[in-house]
Amino acid sequence: MASVDVGVGLLGYGTVGSAVSRMLAESRDEIGRATGHRLTVVRALVRDPAKERAFTPGADVLTDDFATLRDDPRIDVVAEVMGGLEPAGDYVRELLRAGKPVVSANKQLVAREGAELFAIASEAGVQLRFEASVCAAVPVVKVLRESLVAENVQRILGIVNGTTNFVLSRMERGGTYAEALAEAQSLGFAEADPTDDVSGADAAAKIAILATVAFGSRVQLADVQYRGIDTIEPAHVAAAAAFGMAVKLIAIATLADGAVDVRVQPAFVERAHPLAGVEGSSNAVVLQGDAIREVTLGGPGAGGIETASAVVADLVSVVGTSGTGFLQNDACWRELPTLDPSLWTSRFYVHLDVADRPGVLGHAATTFAEHDVSIARLVQHLEPGRAALDLVLHDAMIGSVEAALAKLGASPEVFGRPFIAPVIAA
Amino acid sequence: MASVDVGVGLLGYGTVGSAVSRMLAESRDEIGRATGHRLTVVRALVRDPAKERAFTPGADVLTDDFATLRDDPRIDVVAEVMGGLEPAGDYVRELLRAGKPVVSANKQLVAREGAELFAIASEAGVQLRFEASVCAAVPVVKVLRESLVAENVQRILGIVNGTTNFVLSRMERGGTYAEALAEAQSLGFAEADPTDDVSGADAAAKIAILATVAFGSRVQLADVQYRGIDTIEPAHVAAAAAFGMAVKLIAIATLADGAVDVRVQPAFVERAHPLAGVEGSSNAVVLQGDAIREVTLGGPGAGGIETASAVVADLVSVVGTSGTGFLQNDACWRELPTLDPSLWTSRFYVHLDVADRPGVLGHAATTFAEHDVSIARLVQHLEPGRAALDLVLHDAMIGSVEAALAKLGASPEVFGRPFIAPVIAA
Repeated sequence: MASVDVGVGLLGYGTVGSAVSRMLAESRDEIGRATGHRLTVVRALVRDPAKERAFTPGADVLTDDFATLRDDPRIDVVAEVMGGLEPAGDYVRELLRAGKPVVSANKQLVAREGAELFAIASEAGVQLRFEASVCAAVPVVKVLRESLVAENVQRILGIVNGTTNFVLSRMERGGTYAEALAEAQSLGFAEADPTDDVSGADAAAKIAILATVAFGSRVQLADVQYRGIDTIEPAHVAAAAAFGMAVKLIAIATLADGAVDVRVQPAFVERAHPLAGVEGSSNAVVLQGDAIREVTLGGPGAGGIETASAVVADLVSVVGTSGTGFLQNDACWRELPTLDPSLWTSRFYVHLDVADRPGVLGHAATTFAEHDVSIARLVQHLEPGRAALDLVLHDAMIGSVEAALAKLGASPEVFGRPFIAPVIAA
Repeated sequence: MASVDVGVGLLGYGTVGSAVSRMLAESRDEIGRATGHRLTVVRALVRDPAKERAFTPGADVLTDDFATLRDDPRIDVVAEVMGGLEPAGDYVRELLRAGKPVVSANKQLVAREGAELFAIASEAGVQLRFEASVCAAVPVVKVLRESLVAENVQRILGIVNGTTNFVLSRMERGGTYAEALAEAQSLGFAEADPTDDVSGADAAAKIAILATVAFGSRVQLADVQYRGIDTIEPAHVAAAAAFGMAVKLIAIATLADGAVDVRVQPAFVERAHPLAGVEGSSNAVVLQGDAIREVTLGGPGAGGIETASAVVADLVSVVGTSGTGFLQNDACWRELPTLDPSLWTSRFYVHLDVADRPGVLGHAATTFAEHDVSIARLVQHLEPGRAALDLVLHDAMIGSVEAALAKLGASPEVFGRPFIAPVIAA
């Protein structure tokens, strides 16, 4: 047990880095028992070595010179916990080329530059692991790559952004989007500038990574269609509740007929679905495949310690599989076409504000029928001079639904812009 | 890629075994990409090699002679998918001693003879993996042993028996225990003799395995206190619903103040808790620790293909970590004491049928108070001449609650036996 020392280098020593350092020190015996090795942080690259740290590393560990870390012969594996595209990307490339396995917590780096990084890692015959880049402590990458290696995963559904889930959970208990966002900000669940989260961009980067791993074909960020939660109104939340559903920001990756579709948008989730009950800032991912039918993984999707936990797990996995050839290939091995986005098929919820005149409802129903869209449920709320229509549609292609809504929206008897969201059935 | 052939031996070639054989054949390329090896079933031990099989293995693969399999030099790893304690146990022992890594889907074998088997595996320096022995395709053992290696897991809550969860889900929609069980039997979710499931014994074996892995200390089946669902009445289900809870058979393993408590019993689970929404024959496990706070894993807990999926994942993991020393120790490395069962602390639900006379409620409240048990919520239903009391208690030691109930039960104004169940708060 613990016969050999493994030297660990850290790129960054902020909240995540110091938590990794502390966990490696405090769990040295557990890790030694599991791997037969003792992992020790021997170098950490920081901007200011003199700055006070949450967990103090050993003497001479901190350095502000990348070459000192890169050229340290004691380092067997490196964890990149500094974030940002540059210089993190350059450092990771150099280290991989130098034959050092790398563990990255950097969602943007993996989502945007994964193709290049994995090519370098494959070439050098070293591992690049990235569990912490998606959903922090929820081990979805490991489960996809190792537990489900012989599984044809065909669909991933996920709540992969804690900020938006907190805001939507809060709106379910009443209040506007602005109020819920302000509360999330005051509690530290949303950034001062929440754009990346509320726009769906953060979730898009995460589902791009998961789809790439699950389908074995590179999904670029640009391939992901995304829409955020900033247009969600209390009326949408109330309409969902009336149908026995909850509004959630859902990332969906689908492999259908050999083509890939990846998207992020607010969806109406039926109450009995595992994702409907995911509250607050939690994350959860549903993996659907042939043999497993459906495996759900949930937990905290963010946080310094939670992210550090995933980084440590990856370090342990690198050490535990080193030299075996295991997972040393890029997860991508084929190039699948992207599905024409308009062909993506789902059930949908649609909201229309219409004039309260005879024939309007018939016009709407006829327009849907002309586009091969059929209505499963309809609720009409009358208000003075107008009516609000809440519809749940049967399975339909989103292009057809949008075409029907465009036609209806152009009619003078439809007010404002129709609202559309996929329905996730239990 | 796929440079070396790895020979796989199977003990058993029934539903699970033939599914393993099929998955290895159909996923040869995926497994080759992940591991750098080609896995091939070269021998399978069966009773009758002439019998027709769901998936036909290669020529000369089936044998009814264990020695032929044991002594086949092409075999690098063996999957035990025959079930039962003997001869499976003897075979596994012999194979481990011969230096062959073994993957077992055998819950009873691992739960009852784990200590001996792991000692033999450690001695021989080979792996014994057992993902499929608990919750089939839900990768809880891998996550506990690999992703959470540096995590102090202190509590496991699980729905680990699909039969009982199906029955309880069915009772929530109305009907008696007997009716729900009959339906489960007719649909294939319960055996003709359902004793092992409904008594909680099956769940006890599974939580013993999980507690052993999580706490690093052997939990024997005899250490698990278990109670089944056969005493659950529609009134209990209705009372749970009235409190916003669901009745579930919950396995709970707790590490508190250095002592271990493992138990299985019907519990009242608050609706917002992740386990409350686990419907039908699904399984789910909640792992609580320091850094991760709470990770939930859910999915199909049984089924031939689902079990085979976990066996294949274990085979892949053995190949992927072979020779690194990773997970080649017994998960147990310490001996923790067992908590005095009466000291186990929880919130509780209690049902009492009492005489509708002045002073009875006061007597009950006083008796609880005398035992340091305080009442959080109380609902009284009046019936002619009697009253039903539904109580939710604050955190209390189960020994104190039971002592209070024993005293109350002995009083002539309390009818029948009080009912008690822990409350799982969201």
